[in-house]
Amino acid sequence: MEANAEISSKTSLNGYVMTGGSGNQSYAKNSSYQRDVADATKLLIQNAVSEHLNPRNFPGLETFYVADLGCSVGPNTFIAVQNIIDAVKLRYQISNDKIPEFQVLFNDHTQNDFNTLFKSLPLNGEYYASGVPGSFHSNLFPRASLHFVHTSYSLQWLSCVPKEIITKNKGRVYHIGAGEEVTNAYARQHAADFANFLQARAREVVPGGLMVIVLPSRPNGVPHSRVSFNILNGIFSSTFADLAKKGMIDEEKLDTFNLPIYATSPQELEATIKHNGCFSIEKIECLPKITTKDVPHVVSLGTRAITEGLIKEHFGEEILDGLFEHFTNKLLESLKDIESGLRVNLFLLLKRKDEDTSTF
Amino acid sequence: MEANAEISSKTSLNGYVMTGGSGNQSYAKNSSYQRDVADATKLLIQNAVSEHLNPRNFPGLETFYVADLGCSVGPNTFIAVQNIIDAVKLRYQISNDKIPEFQVLFNDHTQNDFNTLFKSLPLNGEYYASGVPGSFHSNLFPRASLHFVHTSYSLQWLSCVPKEIITKNKGRVYHIGAGEEVTNAYARQHAADFANFLQARAREVVPGGLMVIVLPSRPNGVPHSRVSFNILNGIFSSTFADLAKKGMIDEEKLDTFNLPIYATSPQELEATIKHNGCFSIEKIECLPKITTKDVPHVVSLGTRAITEGLIKEHFGEEILDGLFEHFTNKLLESLKDIESGLRVNLFLLLKRKDEDTSTF
Repeated sequence: MEANAEISSKTSLNGYVMTGGSGNQSYAKNSSYQRDVADATKLLIQNAVSEHLNPRNFPGLETFYVADLGCSVGPNTFIAVQNIIDAVKLRYQISNDKIPEFQVLFNDHTQNDFNTLFKSLPLNGEYYASGVPGSFHSNLFPRASLHFVHTSYSLQWLSCVPKEIITKNKGRVYHIGAGEEVTNAYARQHAADFANFLQARAREVVPGGLMVIVLPSRPNGVPHSRVSFNILNGIFSSTFADLAKKGMIDEEKLDTFNLPIYATSPQELEATIKHNGCFSIEKIECLPKITTKDVPHVVSLGTRAITEGLIKEHFGEEILDGLFEHFTNKLLESLKDIESGLRVNLFLLLKRKDEDTSTF
Repeated sequence: MEANAEISSKTSLNGYVMTGGSGNQSYAKNSSYQRDVADATKLLIQNAVSEHLNPRNFPGLETFYVADLGCSVGPNTFIAVQNIIDAVKLRYQISNDKIPEFQVLFNDHTQNDFNTLFKSLPLNGEYYASGVPGSFHSNLFPRASLHFVHTSYSLQWLSCVPKEIITKNKGRVYHIGAGEEVTNAYARQHAADFANFLQARAREVVPGGLMVIVLPSRPNGVPHSRVSFNILNGIFSSTFADLAKKGMIDEEKLDTFNLPIYATSPQELEATIKHNGCFSIEKIECLPKITTKDVPHVVSLGTRAITEGLIKEHFGEEILDGLFEHFTNKLLESLKDIESGLRVNLFLLLKRKDEDTSTF
C-alpha cells in the first residue's frame, strides 16, 4: 500500500496551492471564472448522473462517496458537490432505490488552507464532510471506495516543471514561443501525470462509478498559440521578462522558473485513458461557451490567487505587487489578442469498467 | 440525516480548541502529560484489540476505519493511531485473516488547526488520512462506518457551560468550592453530553467495533475536591479571582466565565452507557499511574495551550500573560496540595453490540 505516500514529495510543492483565507487576494474571492465553469457544468453533471449512474451497480449501498479533487477553499467546490448530490438523489428517487447517505471527501494539496475550507462548509446537513490532504497524482483513498469523482480546473496543473526544460526555457516562464522541444516536454509531463492520476483513480473508484473531469483544453490539431489559455499565460510570461529587463527580478531566477500548467487536447487525453484501460469514455465534449467578458484587473487578481504561492516561493514576496500591476496593464493592451483566441473547456465523463481491480 | 449538523452551533465554540501551530505556546509543544497518557494507554489498547476485536465480525473487510475524536494537532494523535493500527494488523496476522487497508479519520472542532495537523502527518504510507471537522457530540460519520473509535483526554470537555449556572458561580470559573448546586449542574451537563456522544457513536460504529475512551476521572464515592484534576482547576479558578481583586480583570466578566470541563466517575459513565444500551463494557480500569512530576511552568504552559482560546474569547488576549504568570506562581506554592490529590485516568473499552441499528 502507498497510502498518502505522495506526501513525501510535498516539500517541492509548497507553492502549489490557491491563496487561502478569505481576504481580497484570496482564491475564495477571486475564482469567478471557475465559478462560471461550475455553473456551465451543472446541467452536464445532471445528465451524466441521470444517464450513466445506475444504483443497481451498488446493491445495498449505505453511503455514497463523492470526492472533489483539487477542491481549494471553496465556494466553488461546495456548489459542484451539492449539484452532484442533488443529481444522485434524483437518480435514486426515479428508480425507486433507497437513497444512501453521502460522504464528501474534499481533497487538495497538504498546503491548502483546509481551515478556511472547513469553516465555510455549508450547514445543510446533507452530507458528511472530510478533508483529504495530498496530491491526486497518487492514491489518496482506499481501494474501491469512491462512487463519484469530480475534478474541475485542476488537471491543467503538472506535478512538476518537466525536468529537461528547467534551465532550457530562458527568458520565459511558459512554453508559448519557446519552440517544440519545450512544448513537447510539457506535453509529455502532462501525459505522465494524467496516467498516474488515472492509475490511482482506477484503484479507488468502484466498478460503475463515475468520474467527471473539467479542464481548459486545446482543440485537436489547433496550434497551442491559438488557445486563449495559452495566450494569457504567454502574456503573463512576458510580464516576467519585462520585469527582468527593468532589473526588478533577477534574470537567473527567471531562467529557472516555469509555470507547471498545460492545456491538453482531447486526443492526448483519450490516448492516456485508452492506455490505462480501466475507464470507458462516456462523454467528451466542450462546455457551453462562457460569456463573461475579460476584465483585466479581475483576470489579474484571479491569476494571482492561483499562482502567487509558486511565485513567492521562487522570487520572494516583494515582486508580487509590481508583477501583477504590470500584468494588468499588459492585459489592457492585449485584450483583443486574448479574445481572438479559442477558449475551450473540456467536459469528460468516464466510467470505471466492471473488471477485476485486484492487480492495483 | 443530520450530517455535520452540529456545526450550526459552532460559533459559540470558537474557543474550544487547543492552541494551533507549532510555536512555543502551541498544544503540539505543550502536551507532554497527554503524551504520557498515550504511552500508558499503549499496552491496554494492544490487549483490547488482541482480546476483543474479532476479524470474523467483519467478513471480507477491505478497509478498516479508525477515528480519533478530539485529535487536536498532534503528535499524540499519531502515536495513538499508529498503536491501534499495529495492534489490529497483529490481530489479523494471528488469526491468519487478510489484513485490510486502513483509513484514519482525525476529528476535532471546526476551529481546530487542521492545517498544522495535515502538515505533520506521518509519511509512512500505512494509512489513508482525512480530517473531519465538527463536534463529537453529534454525528460525524456515516452509519455503521467505523471499526475502531479512540478518544483520549477529550471527554472531560462539556459541550457548553451548564446554562443554569452561568451567572450563579460568581468569583469562580470552576465548580470546586461552589457547592452542590453548581457541581450537580456540571455533572448533569456531562451526563447529557456523554449520552449524545454515545448515541452518535452507536449509529456510526459497526457491530463488533471497539471504542476506547481515556479521560481524567474521579473514583466512585470520592469527594470532587480530593481529585488532583479538580485541585488544579480550583487553583486555576482562584488565579482568576486574584486577578479580579487586583483589578486586572473585570469582576462581571469573571462572574460569567466558567470552564466547561468535568471529571466524571466510573459510576456516572456506566449509568449513561447502560441507559444507551448499544455498547457492552468490556473493560473499565485505571491507567497505570503516571510518574511524571508536576513542574509548575510546564503545567501552566499545558493549561494555557488547552484553555487560552476560551479565555481570549471571553476576557481578551491581554490578560493571558499575566494570568498564566500568576498561575505558575500559585502552582509553585500549592505543589503539595496537587500531589496529595488522587490522580486517576480511566480507560474504558466498549464494544458495539450486535443488534439492529436501523432505529438510529
